[in-house]
Amino acid sequence: MILLLGATGYVGQAFQQYLQQSDLAHTALSRSQVDYTNPQQLRDYLKSENVTFLINAAGYTGKPNVDACEIHKTECLEGNATFPGHLREICEERKLPWGHVSSGCIYTGKNPDGSGFSETDPPNFSFRQNNCSWYSGTKALGEEILEGAENCYIWRLRIPFDNRDNPRNYLTKLLRYERLLDAENSVSQLHEFVSVSYQTWARKLEPGIYNITNPGSITTTKVTQWIAESGIAPGQTFQFFENEEAFLKIAAKTPRSNCVLDTKKIEATGIEITPVEQAIKQALASWQPES
Amino acid sequence: MILLLGATGYVGQAFQQYLQQSDLAHTALSRSQVDYTNPQQLRDYLKSENVTFLINAAGYTGKPNVDACEIHKTECLEGNATFPGHLREICEERKLPWGHVSSGCIYTGKNPDGSGFSETDPPNFSFRQNNCSWYSGTKALGEEILEGAENCYIWRLRIPFDNRDNPRNYLTKLLRYERLLDAENSVSQLHEFVSVSYQTWARKLEPGIYNITNPGSITTTKVTQWIAESGIAPGQTFQFFENEEAFLKIAAKTPRSNCVLDTKKIEATGIEITPVEQAIKQALASWQPES
Repeated sequence: MILLLGATGYVGQAFQQYLQQSDLAHTALSRSQVDYTNPQQLRDYLKSENVTFLINAAGYTGKPNVDACEIHKTECLEGNATFPGHLREICEERKLPWGHVSSGCIYTGKNPDGSGFSETDPPNFSFRQNNCSWYSGTKALGEEILEGAENCYIWRLRIPFDNRDNPRNYLTKLLRYERLLDAENSVSQLHEFVSVSYQTWARKLEPGIYNITNPGSITTTKVTQWIAESGIAPGQTFQFFENEEAFLKIAAKTPRSNCVLDTKKIEATGIEITPVEQAIKQALASWQPES
Repeated sequence: MILLLGATGYVGQAFQQYLQQSDLAHTALSRSQVDYTNPQQLRDYLKSENVTFLINAAGYTGKPNVDACEIHKTECLEGNATFPGHLREICEERKLPWGHVSSGCIYTGKNPDGSGFSETDPPNFSFRQNNCSWYSGTKALGEEILEGAENCYIWRLRIPFDNRDNPRNYLTKLLRYERLLDAENSVSQLHEFVSVSYQTWARKLEPGIYNITNPGSITTTKVTQWIAESGIAPGQTFQFFENEEAFLKIAAKTPRSNCVLDTKKIEATGIEITPVEQAIKQALASWQPES
């Protein structure tokens, strides 16, 4: 069976839903059942169960946003760096393949030629560049700790969204925030992210890093136009910060990653993934407001 | 009583010896008694005991040297960053004063004017400068996690030595290594480090960072001359690498910190600390070879 860690989070819930709907035998392990952050407890659990693949959707993102990670530095570093490090050791001991939800937030901007960052480009929004939030720093350290890991898929998510109103949904954020920052980004339709991630293993692709965002990029302005056109928020107007400096001064404690990722690697596998404009318009067309 | 964590290490042993010789009520807690790296277990222990000061001499240094930290990244990050982070939380909850053994290895070189780095200079050998070993990176992150900690003394050690032959003793290293790198460094006589560290709390000094090295700096060449003059290693000659590049190419996996620290802050407290040349010559004059 497939073992899912972190099933209570926004991404973990989507993984659990995917596994259920796909009729894949799985266990969504909660920390109250087995404290899997304790390496010995996880080792004992794995010895007692027939796990064929482990999915790590646990991580520390900060609530309501990454500013919280500036205060909860220890938990953030544990969730995003040392915890995946333990998983690596444990999975390598057992030769157990596994997947880890990483993030594209370890980059900022795009390449000078306008292209997105590929899996081989070193992170440029990290402690090592001394330009990042604590959150992005810990995510980049997590990837360093997983460098060369055996049988490990590293799935890079960026700004998840779908058609369901939720505080973690990018579209909800655009609808609810008082003022927005215009920026260019790659983004991930949550359920496509989950399905594509799972398939990297199911199709026996080479383990390693995969950028899993909908091909292309969007700007905040563009998405707010699509929201206006969709009719899901009649009469709503969108206010923007003048620039990033104003945003940082007024609304944020720590810099945000805004970046474009290259998706050629995942596209070349033949796994289908919807172009970004289409994916966002589909979410808006089937929008489910909070009930 | 004083609670000592990490008493089995080189620095921890010296703390334990100091507490014993000074007739100070203390407990050297081992992880087999109480797994103090588990926050809940440490919380429970502190509730049951009357601890007035906690000394954290536990940390991950790598054996035989910091190259090992490049392989054991997770343990190193835990020992030097997330573990002190938990101690901070726990000690702040209980308003318990505590001291943490940090390191001067988060610096390289000295200031342009030739002075050493003071407690207010930001680390320049760290992940944020992207020039360091994994070990130094984790030590600098540890200090970031402790920034603003209440009732916390941060004692910066550098290259410990005393008069007893030991693989962790700087003088032993100079005697045993096949080839040496000439560099300028601040260094800490181990037992003075321990005694001075303890006194920062005992004398109710302001909590915060203290560089605790013997005032001044030494070069490797100079110390090998003193060794030759001391007569403890008759006939021994010392081979040097041509330069740091050669050292890194031949003998090391990861860059080493070589740096000078400013000790004005600790000297201004009135706590006595032997000038570095005298401290080294005293160790050599009373040298105890491995029996």
